Amino acid sequence: MNDNETVAAVLETTATRKMNGHLPNAVDLSHHLNLLSRSRHPSPLKDIIKFMGYDGMISLAGGLPHPSLFPVYDASFTVSAPSPTADSLEIKLSNDSGETPPLSKFLQYGTCTGNAELRQWCLDFTRQIHRPAYKDFDVLLHPGNTNAWSKVVGLLCEKGDYILCESYTYPSSQALWIPNDNFAAPVAMDGEGITDTALEEILSTWDATHPGVKRPHVLYLVSVGSNPTGVSMGSERRRKIYEICVKYDVIIVEDDPYYFLQYPEIDTSGTPTEYTSTSNKEFLSSLVPSFLRFDRQGRVIRLESFSKTLAPGLRLGYFVANPLFTERLLRATEVETQDPSGLSQALVLALLTRWSRDGYITWLQNLRLEYQRRRDWMVAALRKSFDLAPASEYPELSGAEGGLVAAILGPNGSRVPVFSFIAPTGGMFIWTKFYFGHNAKYLALKNAAVEVDPEQIFANKLWAELAEERVLLTPGYYYHPWQGADKTSTTARGADPDSSHFRLAFSMTTKDDMELGIERMANVIRRSWSP
Amino acid sequence: MNDNETVAAVLETTATRKMNGHLPNAVDLSHHLNLLSRSRHPSPLKDIIKFMGYDGMISLAGGLPHPSLFPVYDASFTVSAPSPTADSLEIKLSNDSGETPPLSKFLQYGTCTGNAELRQWCLDFTRQIHRPAYKDFDVLLHPGNTNAWSKVVGLLCEKGDYILCESYTYPSSQALWIPNDNFAAPVAMDGEGITDTALEEILSTWDATHPGVKRPHVLYLVSVGSNPTGVSMGSERRRKIYEICVKYDVIIVEDDPYYFLQYPEIDTSGTPTEYTSTSNKEFLSSLVPSFLRFDRQGRVIRLESFSKTLAPGLRLGYFVANPLFTERLLRATEVETQDPSGLSQALVLALLTRWSRDGYITWLQNLRLEYQRRRDWMVAALRKSFDLAPASEYPELSGAEGGLVAAILGPNGSRVPVFSFIAPTGGMFIWTKFYFGHNAKYLALKNAAVEVDPEQIFANKLWAELAEERVLLTPGYYYHPWQGADKTSTTARGADPDSSHFRLAFSMTTKDDMELGIERMANVIRRSWSP
Repeated sequence: MNDNETVAAVLETTATRKMNGHLPNAVDLSHHLNLLSRSRHPSPLKDIIKFMGYDGMISLAGGLPHPSLFPVYDASFTVSAPSPTADSLEIKLSNDSGETPPLSKFLQYGTCTGNAELRQWCLDFTRQIHRPAYKDFDVLLHPGNTNAWSKVVGLLCEKGDYILCESYTYPSSQALWIPNDNFAAPVAMDGEGITDTALEEILSTWDATHPGVKRPHVLYLVSVGSNPTGVSMGSERRRKIYEICVKYDVIIVEDDPYYFLQYPEIDTSGTPTEYTSTSNKEFLSSLVPSFLRFDRQGRVIRLESFSKTLAPGLRLGYFVANPLFTERLLRATEVETQDPSGLSQALVLALLTRWSRDGYITWLQNLRLEYQRRRDWMVAALRKSFDLAPASEYPELSGAEGGLVAAILGPNGSRVPVFSFIAPTGGMFIWTKFYFGHNAKYLALKNAAVEVDPEQIFANKLWAELAEERVLLTPGYYYHPWQGADKTSTTARGADPDSSHFRLAFSMTTKDDMELGIERMANVIRRSWSP
Repeated sequence: MNDNETVAAVLETTATRKMNGHLPNAVDLSHHLNLLSRSRHPSPLKDIIKFMGYDGMISLAGGLPHPSLFPVYDASFTVSAPSPTADSLEIKLSNDSGETPPLSKFLQYGTCTGNAELRQWCLDFTRQIHRPAYKDFDVLLHPGNTNAWSKVVGLLCEKGDYILCESYTYPSSQALWIPNDNFAAPVAMDGEGITDTALEEILSTWDATHPGVKRPHVLYLVSVGSNPTGVSMGSERRRKIYEICVKYDVIIVEDDPYYFLQYPEIDTSGTPTEYTSTSNKEFLSSLVPSFLRFDRQGRVIRLESFSKTLAPGLRLGYFVANPLFTERLLRATEVETQDPSGLSQALVLALLTRWSRDGYITWLQNLRLEYQRRRDWMVAALRKSFDLAPASEYPELSGAEGGLVAAILGPNGSRVPVFSFIAPTGGMFIWTKFYFGHNAKYLALKNAAVEVDPEQIFANKLWAELAEERVLLTPGYYYHPWQGADKTSTTARGADPDSSHFRLAFSMTTKDDMELGIERMANVIRRSWSP
């Protein structure tokens, strides 16, 4: 950070503080807590810790192992500079280091809230990036968003509750709530994610459509680069959704690991894209605001993760929420996990401190460019193996609106549309909607009228043929919201007939493999669609 | 390891394998699973991972971040040698290391079971140390015993279930089960922990004493160096307890972080103790067998932790259990935590590999000596500040049997017994039972007959006076098993009248501070007990 930037940062902090001074505190949302969460008491053992700070106190209380008996004396890491083209950096942690907290502190039991400096870092970063619209938001460390979502369900949901979610939703989140006897209340999506009209419709008609069932009070969504659909929600849509959640008293759980992986619209002009970074200020202002920006009441719980921005194996992230919720989440942390790995906390704190906050933002910006490049590779590969055209050329295809359609050449040179997708502006996924209406083998299966769910049967068959050809996609049915055992078939779910979905990830494959994989996919499709 | 030891180890492994060949598999214990656990399904996303290993497969399926974009290139640690007097060692982990798995693998998402090599290490170690009496036991990594116990309650307990536990039990475990609407069924203890007669009595009379309430099917205990009581259970007691659990179909959850911190009886001869290590073979044969040694049916779940043997901040441990239970625990792991921090796994695997299994046992042996030394310091400090005598000299004191009594000098030179304790042969704690019968201030409080629980009131007052004098103990009431809101007072719990407990930890304090702290304690006691 140069001097000007330091001054700017100080000014911004002062401005933020001033601004914060005028912000309201969170409203009382305690009626959202479930019985389990209300019943938790502070662990008495933790209470005693505050006395340990007394001058001259000799503690025979806490049963901690002695740090001199930890076998690890120091650690050093070679890490990237914020800009990956610069020379790498060395980070050292030792038991007697003066500047940073000693390593032995991170090897000892923590206080369940997580390291105080790291929490402060997260708080400051949240204030700078998300600028919550209420004053007393708090953060609490957690060991990754899987665990964070598990704790949120344990905080808010009773058995039998319906959870509002995207019409295709992250399966591991569901795998948690299904055995807990919760059900999905899926909200219809467009190219920006769930729509405000669909949300309003569900909530306003709930009592009529679900007599005797409690109206959902939790909305779970991945609002940037949604998994699996890849779509991101714009600012105006967020404002509208937030107001509906105020009106119907809904808590918004924003699971947002891809927030910094936001990309410009795909460039179809044919001119080569330049993947160059801009100033951090420009980068930050290019990002869509999170729900926190609209949160004047404290009804948003953000699940923040370092998994996509640093590394998933760290198992480290943090909640941002109102202080009532973070306090109850801390009670759950005490008995369910304790704080995240101290080694992970030590490395992340040292890395972020070494980089500085500004350096971390530079890192994020470069990371974003790398994933944008991968998105562009995949769209180019699709263009190479298929005939790609705007969906407007295929007005008969339902659900393709605003996207692109991939077609193959039919018997007499005609274009046969096979699937549509929206080139994502965030995340790691392209979500394809397949149309089976022109596939003779599918039509034969359907017309035989033996199978209850010919779409699903045919999609499974196609998936197996792709795997046989050595290209793996993720089947769309993984992401179907669970609405009960009677709503699992394509028809029963109310999905479009003669269609199915597959998810393509562009995060992990090399450019060459991506092209080869997509070409294999085209081969299988051409074979399957041939009469 | 020298050649002879290597040969011995190979022979032992072969012998174990041979022996294992004759062992039975676990019996079917599926009726112990609760509804939540039965309802879990494998996460579909994880299923796809097995296809990724196909030759030439191009995966567009898994949404993993790209490892080239992780900012950590390599890590190195300076660690202790197994014998702390030897020179320290260097451990290096890099992304392209040939011998060990590359660091990037540990920075990526894991498979929820944890690293395969580390799991294998845990399996081999369990076979060597505990020699389970059935064949198909399995291990699963977890992020520490707090989380492990949370997952076990989620595996076995329904709301309303009673959990068998020690008559003083670890409070954080209880803090989990109380809001889950579980109750303690405390089992009376002696100097070896819970007694088989008390356990048999509770189970055989359950239907009569608790009509309409399900008989407990889970026993939770810390069987070595119990927290808080410090007692350890011998081999014969374990055999009897195990048979009772077979008879009444009870699952034994052995939370055993202190297993390797087993000490000889305290030496009262006055000759200075030599803290010298023996051969690893002698060390291992000095250890009391765990419940696994008796477990011919697979009804023991061991919660293993590296917190006390390496460092708590690693948040790393493992379950040992029958394969049905580990499979269900894996399902919970997928949706509740994922696998433990990869960085912690990488460091522990590298350390254990570098040390070798034999080296780790040497480390444990030396660690044990260090904590034994600390136990001896504390007993010596108690001897310095109090008049210590065998409990046999105080036959009137209930619950002091087999232990030592700490007395102060009374007005006319008589010995006034204040508290008793059993010098522990394991763990980190001395559990003191205080007798208030000779304390005039307590008797005045009791005789005023205003307070429902004069014992508790007086114990709190004494604790505050100790804290004021700058010595912190842990109040005994932290460890009272929760039997419901109507059973919280000393009388209602059925505890001895005119008594209370405090826990003293000898793990964390220096010798000088220990002496000073105990002297402060004696000062407060002398003041309080003076007429």
